[in-house]
Amino acid sequence: MDLSEEMKLIKRGTKEIISEEELEQKLINSKKNKKPLVIKQGFDPSAPDIHLGHTVGLRKLRHFQDLGHEVYFLIGDFTGMIGDPSGRSVTRKQLTPDEVKKNAETYKEQVFKILDPEKTIVEFNSHWLGKLSFVEVIKLCSKYTVARMLERDDFANRFREQKPIGVHEFLYPLMQAYDSIALKADVELGGTDQKFNLLVGRDLQREYNQEPQVIITLPLIEGTDGVEKMSKSLGNYIGINENPFDMYGKTMSIPDKLILTYFELLTDIPYPDLEKIEQDLKENKTTPLTVKKRLAKEIVKIYHGYHQANEAEKNFQKVFQEKKIPENIQNLLLPRHILKNNKIWIVKLIKQTNLLSSTGEILRIIEQGGVKINNKKVEETNIDLEIKEGDILRVGKLYFYRIKIV
Amino acid sequence: MDLSEEMKLIKRGTKEIISEEELEQKLINSKKNKKPLVIKQGFDPSAPDIHLGHTVGLRKLRHFQDLGHEVYFLIGDFTGMIGDPSGRSVTRKQLTPDEVKKNAETYKEQVFKILDPEKTIVEFNSHWLGKLSFVEVIKLCSKYTVARMLERDDFANRFREQKPIGVHEFLYPLMQAYDSIALKADVELGGTDQKFNLLVGRDLQREYNQEPQVIITLPLIEGTDGVEKMSKSLGNYIGINENPFDMYGKTMSIPDKLILTYFELLTDIPYPDLEKIEQDLKENKTTPLTVKKRLAKEIVKIYHGYHQANEAEKNFQKVFQEKKIPENIQNLLLPRHILKNNKIWIVKLIKQTNLLSSTGEILRIIEQGGVKINNKKVEETNIDLEIKEGDILRVGKLYFYRIKIV
Repeated sequence: MDLSEEMKLIKRGTKEIISEEELEQKLINSKKNKKPLVIKQGFDPSAPDIHLGHTVGLRKLRHFQDLGHEVYFLIGDFTGMIGDPSGRSVTRKQLTPDEVKKNAETYKEQVFKILDPEKTIVEFNSHWLGKLSFVEVIKLCSKYTVARMLERDDFANRFREQKPIGVHEFLYPLMQAYDSIALKADVELGGTDQKFNLLVGRDLQREYNQEPQVIITLPLIEGTDGVEKMSKSLGNYIGINENPFDMYGKTMSIPDKLILTYFELLTDIPYPDLEKIEQDLKENKTTPLTVKKRLAKEIVKIYHGYHQANEAEKNFQKVFQEKKIPENIQNLLLPRHILKNNKIWIVKLIKQTNLLSSTGEILRIIEQGGVKINNKKVEETNIDLEIKEGDILRVGKLYFYRIKIV
Repeated sequence: MDLSEEMKLIKRGTKEIISEEELEQKLINSKKNKKPLVIKQGFDPSAPDIHLGHTVGLRKLRHFQDLGHEVYFLIGDFTGMIGDPSGRSVTRKQLTPDEVKKNAETYKEQVFKILDPEKTIVEFNSHWLGKLSFVEVIKLCSKYTVARMLERDDFANRFREQKPIGVHEFLYPLMQAYDSIALKADVELGGTDQKFNLLVGRDLQREYNQEPQVIITLPLIEGTDGVEKMSKSLGNYIGINENPFDMYGKTMSIPDKLILTYFELLTDIPYPDLEKIEQDLKENKTTPLTVKKRLAKEIVKIYHGYHQANEAEKNFQKVFQEKKIPENIQNLLLPRHILKNNKIWIVKLIKQTNLLSSTGEILRIIEQGGVKINNKKVEETNIDLEIKEGDILRVGKLYFYRIKIV
């Protein structure tokens, strides 16, 4: 690949690169000196469930790996160990070192579906931040002014609205910047919401006599609802550990307006193909449904391979277009002793799936007509159902279980 | 002493006590539990030359000692070791641990002229601040908001005027507050310019579940020029290590408007006497000169004893009123070899006194008519003077030397 092709790959789907000239120079120097660039991205230690929203950055890291560079997958465990940075939320609890370690393992299992393990170094920022003395903290703080800190959007807004900002919150961007110094990062990636912090890293590297990192921001994609940013807590996410059928089905549920964005950011289909899809949709040479099927299949292929992607497509066809049940659905093992005269309360039955744990949620989904036994809607919440081996339970659009009494 | 007398002693010369009620309660509890109060004041490790301006606070500390309480004379060596806090001045250099230790000894020699060594603990804040981990620093910072920090006058002004404030400058009030936490201070003293920092200590002790300290601010007295705050760098100071004659003479040089303030803050003469002096001056029953002589004598008495104070008074009388030279003046030893035909350049002669080292300053004082030989003004800067054993050199108003050729 020549430099312009490399830049094209890197630029795909990015929001901003500061600066492209510096990046080009770094790529040239790297090749000349046979020294891979250090590419950094930070990850929250408390949220190791990776969904397609995270993969936008991970896939960009992978692009750099494909070009021969080295990726630091940086887990912000120091932050995790000191608890909530904003001081406002009481829900974010402090993680123990063991929890951090466990979460890191969970991360690895997932991210290596995208990243090349050979070119990935998993690091923890407690390694250096935990050792920083007060004197060094003061030195770090002396490199940045209060006024510039207050330029960050969320600080500026809260300051204007007289909402409290803890002095310690000013330390977080500086900590993230120190990570770049510790790693001598050449490039740092982040969501568009991270732009300020990434720039602080760039500034502070200069103060510590390092070549400033290039920063690359990536868009935050909307979730399956097409409204909010994809997030686990909002329930609009597609997890990369989900089974092929769910992954396919959830992708099929996105609004049409997201199709092209998802193609660009979540798959590798080349730009000419992307342009053709856009053109064909505009000229009604194809339908959103057809295109979305291709998208869903592309995505499943990345995480489960070609065969599973085909299966998921077939299953989806069966369930939603031919109204049949999918093949190879999972068994729901029911211990005989929880049945009384072969009957069980519908809520208790659904609890056995571990899909939903709250009785409230289960009642709601039944009331909304989202539960079927052998394709027949369950109309009441307060009934004991007669259940036999081989019955098919369906919860929501996507979840099917074949009952097995043990 | 009963409580009201104790409060009267403590209140003398203070600018503000926050709060008097809490202080009374602390005094009562201390008596009841037979547990002395912890009284704290911080001192700059880089400026161990103590002048009368410093004694305002030191004398207040002594009052607390006289009431049986314990004084922490806290040397801010941690700050000294990390260099200039404001980041603006390049002159304030980082102190080594050895320099800090040496300065501390110099401090002790001086402050024990005022403080009771038995009831004084000299401490260094590096003891606890140097050990603070980053996690603890973050915890400390989380207890205070950016908005409240920006309420401090100098921060508010600089922020408004768009002058830079380093993020680390926000750490200084928090460090000083942490000192109060570490010492479990009951009372902290400081100049009026310290009010904000003292209040932060009060707030943070609450956050760390301690009884908040009472803060006492003391006025910053003007120096001998009657204009600027007394300070070594402005040359308007009276050092407590100065000889009786200089101390007396410098006190005589203050403008009349400072007489009562100096009496109140720098001597122990009782309030009724003070009121009488004020009344007598108002009714022209006495002259400022007479009163100032009493003040000068009182001050010299504190640092050099009664006899020396008397001598200083007599000398002053001789020199300034009878235009004679003082008794017991110091010798200026002149090596014979630096004389040529018994002559020496006047500038070179003055350099031998070690009073002034810069030629520029010496030239200026000669031009201003400030140099006399045997009571005869030296009119030119560019002359070689004939000098003989026993000649009297006078530099400025106060410095006399008897020449001795060796």
